[in-house]
Amino acid sequence: MSIKLKAITAPPSKEELSNRLKKVRNLMKQQDLDYFISFDPVNIYYLTNFAFYVHERPFILVIPKEGLPKMLIPLLEKGHFEQRALIDVDSITYYEFPARSGENWYDYYQKLIKKDSKVGIEPAMPMGIANKTPGKKIVSEIVEEARIIKSEYEIGRTIHACRVVNKGHKVLLKKCRPKVLLFALYREVTNAMTSKIVQDIPNANFKATETTGAVWPPSISHDPHLIPHIFAEMEEGGPHVSIVQAQVDGYGVEIERTFFLGNVPEKAKKPFATMFEARAIAYDLLKPGTIMSDIDIKVRKFITERGYGDYILHRTGHGLGITGHEAPYIAEGYDRPLEQGMLVSVEPGIYIPGIGGFRHSDTVLITDSGYQKLTRAPETLEDLTIKI
Amino acid sequence: MSIKLKAITAPPSKEELSNRLKKVRNLMKQQDLDYFISFDPVNIYYLTNFAFYVHERPFILVIPKEGLPKMLIPLLEKGHFEQRALIDVDSITYYEFPARSGENWYDYYQKLIKKDSKVGIEPAMPMGIANKTPGKKIVSEIVEEARIIKSEYEIGRTIHACRVVNKGHKVLLKKCRPKVLLFALYREVTNAMTSKIVQDIPNANFKATETTGAVWPPSISHDPHLIPHIFAEMEEGGPHVSIVQAQVDGYGVEIERTFFLGNVPEKAKKPFATMFEARAIAYDLLKPGTIMSDIDIKVRKFITERGYGDYILHRTGHGLGITGHEAPYIAEGYDRPLEQGMLVSVEPGIYIPGIGGFRHSDTVLITDSGYQKLTRAPETLEDLTIKI
Repeated sequence: MSIKLKAITAPPSKEELSNRLKKVRNLMKQQDLDYFISFDPVNIYYLTNFAFYVHERPFILVIPKEGLPKMLIPLLEKGHFEQRALIDVDSITYYEFPARSGENWYDYYQKLIKKDSKVGIEPAMPMGIANKTPGKKIVSEIVEEARIIKSEYEIGRTIHACRVVNKGHKVLLKKCRPKVLLFALYREVTNAMTSKIVQDIPNANFKATETTGAVWPPSISHDPHLIPHIFAEMEEGGPHVSIVQAQVDGYGVEIERTFFLGNVPEKAKKPFATMFEARAIAYDLLKPGTIMSDIDIKVRKFITERGYGDYILHRTGHGLGITGHEAPYIAEGYDRPLEQGMLVSVEPGIYIPGIGGFRHSDTVLITDSGYQKLTRAPETLEDLTIKI
Repeated sequence: MSIKLKAITAPPSKEELSNRLKKVRNLMKQQDLDYFISFDPVNIYYLTNFAFYVHERPFILVIPKEGLPKMLIPLLEKGHFEQRALIDVDSITYYEFPARSGENWYDYYQKLIKKDSKVGIEPAMPMGIANKTPGKKIVSEIVEEARIIKSEYEIGRTIHACRVVNKGHKVLLKKCRPKVLLFALYREVTNAMTSKIVQDIPNANFKATETTGAVWPPSISHDPHLIPHIFAEMEEGGPHVSIVQAQVDGYGVEIERTFFLGNVPEKAKKPFATMFEARAIAYDLLKPGTIMSDIDIKVRKFITERGYGDYILHRTGHGLGITGHEAPYIAEGYDRPLEQGMLVSVEPGIYIPGIGGFRHSDTVLITDSGYQKLTRAPETLEDLTIKI
């Protein structure tokens, strides 16, 4: 293991951010770009440490192939930007949206990019911004690419974020009993996580912090993206499926478990065991060099052979970083090898109407020789059958 | 007054949603469009009542000029979509992102649009989606336009949402005392609002519900978009500036006040009075037919004449609807007349480093002959000087 597994809570150093910019510029060079324009708040946060909410007043980061990047911001956000941004950047403010003629954001924006230049833009860039962007535009996932392999610093932040969800999940399993309302449970779990966050990081950025602590009780756990009613009651038996997620001062992680209150219905045993084994198949393959689609194909094949092929609703896993859902994907169709420093979820699922949902998920780091789970909670059926 | 001012908490009727679709189709006809494509979750919510979080799995609404609209959704979201969507629509699911060759979202998407057709797309549509969209594409703010004038139903929902923030603001003024931590205050105010929401709308959609209840204490109130430290303490004196906002089961509103704890510093009196008069100027002009930029110009002129021109950081107001920030804008450069059924904020502000910020904001309905404030809280300096 050449990666240090140490939790970090400090903001990124200048060097960390400068390395991220270097990665982006190396990729720009490969594509022979004169500029790269970032509008996606996730990418801007990655490069600057400044988090914001996108509204009608645009924030745009212009990265020339050399020299200081330029950041276009609304006047109203100047103080906020200076408070949080940690890279050297020329900031240019515009007054408002809309503004008097000649003083709109695009009047300033268009001066930042030389005509006839080759300009990389994000797939997420809205048409309304792209149409105001000068030069020859090329859609390119440069920053998304830079974000795929994590630095030691990012891993340290993620380790800390995982401690937050581990704590949340512990509270969840302790408080989840038949008749408890989802609403009450949600408050307890998210309050526990928020308290830990502000204790560990008193200056945490709440524009980049969010917590979720929910349970899908057995009556709806077969439908994982249905939003449960806030007055839904926890039920005896199971499967219940927990979802504990957090973005902790910029770093997104998750932990999920299938669990039972008091007893395990007979018909739930085989699907649980199948999910459990499917997970083991995925973990066995989880090391640098494995093609990600191969994992998903093998996991699906196994579940299908066990008779549950019709009850698969999603891929085996996804990447995590600033967001809780991003590249790389452990999914058929994503033919890229795992590499050291990637962060992925491992979460094969089976969803059977009338019986329920079966899914564990963890946040997992790919190491030089295999993997390291960063989240922790009970895993076996025995440990996840809670006495009531 | 021809608009009934009655709070509504029920979900939209089929007729309400059908009228919204009709508005959009009328605008499509004016632009001779064969299809309009909506990707923006706000617009999709407006048209379908389905709220979701945008991630790497796209949700796309395809509106042909006639016949049922089609909605492309990830398989995982089918149950969720059926739970919340209230319009008649053909829903088409795709398995995952990414997916095996030939089964990706765009393979299905491209079949929904006839080649060589004229296709309207949103300014917010990302390049990555636009590039997969067939036909001759025209960027057009059709749904944004349809959303500007509110129906009686939308007004009723907004009246209810305003009651929620009114309650939140009342709690805020009651609990805000010197030494109280922002963190504690925030929890009390948002808990009070959330409790009212779930009491009034037990089935509220929490993907379209959010509450904020914060105060900028005098040491930072001059910088309205700086995010205060969660352990910031409320201070004696002022100006404090409150921000109480909510999206209540889909409808976004705000109320903000400049207030003082115990005493009003001498140097705060003139800026408060100026803000108060600027506000009166705006309200005097607030009726159908007034050009919105004219209001902003007159308000700025007045503030400038009083010597505070350098301390203006933003326009006089913005529209509200599903979001708390949208067209129309009471801003120089926005040369459109006010119309009955618009919802706007009125919030001229003055921000003086070393003294503080001065801003009241209300959510206001434009009526047939003038306006009606939908939010309510004390307004005068006397009433906003709280005994401690």
